[in-house]
Amino acid sequence: MTETVHLRAAEAVQGDPPLPPPSPRRHLLGVSDLDRDDIERLLGTAATIARSLDREVKKLPALRGRLVLNLFYESSTRTLSSFDLAAKRLSADTMALRSSGSSVDKGESLKDTALTLAEYDPDVIVIRHPHIGAPQLVAAVTRAHVVNAGDGKHQHPTQALLDLYTMRESLGRLDGLHVAIVGDVLHSRVARSLIEALDLVGARTTLVGPPTLMPRGIEQMGCEVSSDIGAIATADVVYVLRMQRERMLAGAAYVPSLREYAAEWGVTAARLRPGQIVMHPGPMNRGVEIDPRVADSDVSLITEQVRSGLIVRMAVLYDLLAGGPVDVARELEVA
Amino acid sequence: MTETVHLRAAEAVQGDPPLPPPSPRRHLLGVSDLDRDDIERLLGTAATIARSLDREVKKLPALRGRLVLNLFYESSTRTLSSFDLAAKRLSADTMALRSSGSSVDKGESLKDTALTLAEYDPDVIVIRHPHIGAPQLVAAVTRAHVVNAGDGKHQHPTQALLDLYTMRESLGRLDGLHVAIVGDVLHSRVARSLIEALDLVGARTTLVGPPTLMPRGIEQMGCEVSSDIGAIATADVVYVLRMQRERMLAGAAYVPSLREYAAEWGVTAARLRPGQIVMHPGPMNRGVEIDPRVADSDVSLITEQVRSGLIVRMAVLYDLLAGGPVDVARELEVA
Amino acid sequence: MTETVHLRAAEAVQGDPPLPPPSPRRHLLGVSDLDRDDIERLLGTAATIARSLDREVKKLPALRGRLVLNLFYESSTRTLSSFDLAAKRLSADTMALRSSGSSVDKGESLKDTALTLAEYDPDVIVIRHPHIGAPQLVAAVTRAHVVNAGDGKHQHPTQALLDLYTMRESLGRLDGLHVAIVGDVLHSRVARSLIEALDLVGARTTLVGPPTLMPRGIEQMGCEVSSDIGAIATADVVYVLRMQRERMLAGAAYVPSLREYAAEWGVTAARLRPGQIVMHPGPMNRGVEIDPRVADSDVSLITEQVRSGLIVRMAVLYDLLAGGPVDVARELEVA
Repeated sequence: MTETVHLRAAEAVQGDPPLPPPSPRRHLLGVSDLDRDDIERLLGTAATIARSLDREVKKLPALRGRLVLNLFYESSTRTLSSFDLAAKRLSADTMALRSSGSSVDKGESLKDTALTLAEYDPDVIVIRHPHIGAPQLVAAVTRAHVVNAGDGKHQHPTQALLDLYTMRESLGRLDGLHVAIVGDVLHSRVARSLIEALDLVGARTTLVGPPTLMPRGIEQMGCEVSSDIGAIATADVVYVLRMQRERMLAGAAYVPSLREYAAEWGVTAARLRPGQIVMHPGPMNRGVEIDPRVADSDVSLITEQVRSGLIVRMAVLYDLLAGGPVDVARELEVA
Repeated sequence: MTETVHLRAAEAVQGDPPLPPPSPRRHLLGVSDLDRDDIERLLGTAATIARSLDREVKKLPALRGRLVLNLFYESSTRTLSSFDLAAKRLSADTMALRSSGSSVDKGESLKDTALTLAEYDPDVIVIRHPHIGAPQLVAAVTRAHVVNAGDGKHQHPTQALLDLYTMRESLGRLDGLHVAIVGDVLHSRVARSLIEALDLVGARTTLVGPPTLMPRGIEQMGCEVSSDIGAIATADVVYVLRMQRERMLAGAAYVPSLREYAAEWGVTAARLRPGQIVMHPGPMNRGVEIDPRVADSDVSLITEQVRSGLIVRMAVLYDLLAGGPVDVARELEVA
Repeated sequence: MTETVHLRAAEAVQGDPPLPPPSPRRHLLGVSDLDRDDIERLLGTAATIARSLDREVKKLPALRGRLVLNLFYESSTRTLSSFDLAAKRLSADTMALRSSGSSVDKGESLKDTALTLAEYDPDVIVIRHPHIGAPQLVAAVTRAHVVNAGDGKHQHPTQALLDLYTMRESLGRLDGLHVAIVGDVLHSRVARSLIEALDLVGARTTLVGPPTLMPRGIEQMGCEVSSDIGAIATADVVYVLRMQRERMLAGAAYVPSLREYAAEWGVTAARLRPGQIVMHPGPMNRGVEIDPRVADSDVSLITEQVRSGLIVRMAVLYDLLAGGPVDVARELEVA
């Protein structure tokens, strides 16, 4: 595919007729867009890409001439920079539009913005938006491949994929793993996407946290629920969620205080057993949901997750634009 | 010229003597910089570029190694992203400087900023500024080609060019067209540039709107003026202006209310006749100057205008840096 | 080295084993990282790069595929754009992270941010930060080459290098020069770096300004100190510092008023003698520390300094990534 894209880029100045559009157009709007084979393929592509990043010059030519448009209605330097760099490492051009300072401020609707952006013909639109379903709307009115980088409390599929990738790199497998997700599940799109993804790959999930932060009926997603922090002891992976303080409405007493939360639910060394690994989607509230000594210890994969994020987003962009399962290893590694 | 630029880029690492500066240095400060032949040439270049954008990989190598600097003293994601992408699609590097967060905040004058930027030797400076004449100042103190992306209530020449391009693509001609420009002409640099450009290509303009929003003496630009919304009925194109609410000083009662304005001057389906097309420079105030049902209907070319903006700005950048009329079709399409 | 980097970029898609990391990893954290040979080498590289910028297409391929990450915790469009463009002119990719709008706002520490960024494997991190020592911290926790773009009142080494470059270009030598640095030395990292650098190359420095703006014990850096503005008369170079009004705490009466400061310490034509040159790191407070007629006259090298900034930062990036002293002229000029 690398080679093909190359030829096409060259052809673009050589007067040949327009190429047929890739078919079918694909998106990553949620984990439900994926089946187990898709996940296997994406994680495999990611592993190949990871090897290429061990070289001194890390840029790959695969998406030369392509445009990835990052449309962010919520501030998140971490996710935005990860997608931006993923695109650049694949030689794509990038453009970022943030709600502050944009036409959005003049009261333009998401639909009008998307219709406008559609005219720029980006190959991929990565969207983060506070409202559930925003990525679907963008997919409906543009010709771009759309990647959901977080919509409200709903989904954040690349986060789930990077977490799977990190777990597999560290533990060697996903099937049969037991993952405890701890904390503020109620406000967490990360949790929703991850529960689904773990289920797809044959892992088992236990949600652990105060009942006030547990969505009603969540066990219907196929996971166990516990309000006893001791429940993390049997897990292979302890996945700590960020306390979404900025999402908590004033007066809604989800937790008595951050100090009490830390005492009762904080993940500390004493609550872990040997052999467990600890993950967190970041940024952390050190001393609230996680003890800094745990975060900085060998059992923590938190910085590995950042690296996995770059790699997995490269894999997702590559996969969407390459149009399907291909022999990635050959194409990335052999010219 | 594509080829020439290529050779020069290659030569840049091969030790040959500096090339002579292109002569004469040209700008696009206002529509008055253009004659009819210039407009024909630019629209022709745009049409050629448009065909290249139908391909899967849309990037052209023409301006590889060049630098386009976007200097925006007014927030406008729409225009800034259009110029930024136009430059990127031609393989130029881009850099954006916005007044917020820049040295400007430390009280530096436009002249000092321009003198500073001149030392970076950008090939093109695109400037948007609230003061009339700012682009001329930048042209005077730098060696760059300067493009006016809007200066106060004065000019916005690329908007006029993209509107001509859109009209011609849709109606097949410009000569003899009748265009009604409706609304807040007083605060509109878009209107000023468009009236001039339509005159140059042999089209006829009628300005329609409340007398309070009509600049005194505007008919001296060669257009008719009407305060009867019914006057739009005889036009081929109904060009709706944005109500520049942010420019209206509090207390200056240009219009009694937005609701009354919409009732009396809003462009609705009932006020249009079959065969007319509707345009708007965006972003729209839906329900004020334009009925949403009109904006979303087949007679509206509003999203086409966004696409034309990208194409025409590519043509302008190409034309300025290529140094004159060239056989664009051959150079863009044959390697 | 250009050629070498090229080969490596090509190899990155050809399946060969990872290259060994360059050794030793080097930084530019302060002038004390440099000896006289380093300065000579950097100024020589800069002079070669300057010649390449006389060509029409100014981009060089030397750092193709590399990533330069600009991490700015203080707003400075001038320095940020200089580093950004320096990297782009060498064909590197760039990414800018500013404290406003970033994870920093969610309370993340510099260490956590640096650990996160380390996972992106940038080749160079350029950091500006209000706290002394921030660049050292970043160097300690990442694998990148780190360039200090200003840390508190401490150091700003590329400013010192660009000033040396400007002086040598104008006066033909550095050894034996006499430089008067005038004004607010107390708050100036520029002054600290420049005093050190001038000492290294055999130039002599006199600090001139009100005792309230002179750090105690500064003469231990090997310079003379005078509170008589007449002391500038014997210097070859009059280097005027910006009055750092934004750093002056309210109530701390460093100077009675800006007007009195200008009268007593402002650099005016009457205070200069023929043959002297005047410099200023910018942005200027015209009419405070410098008379606008001096700033705009032939004796002023202020815009030349901006150009030197771009050139010297290109040289620094090139030097760090090329891994040591090399025959730059051959590599930049012969393909």
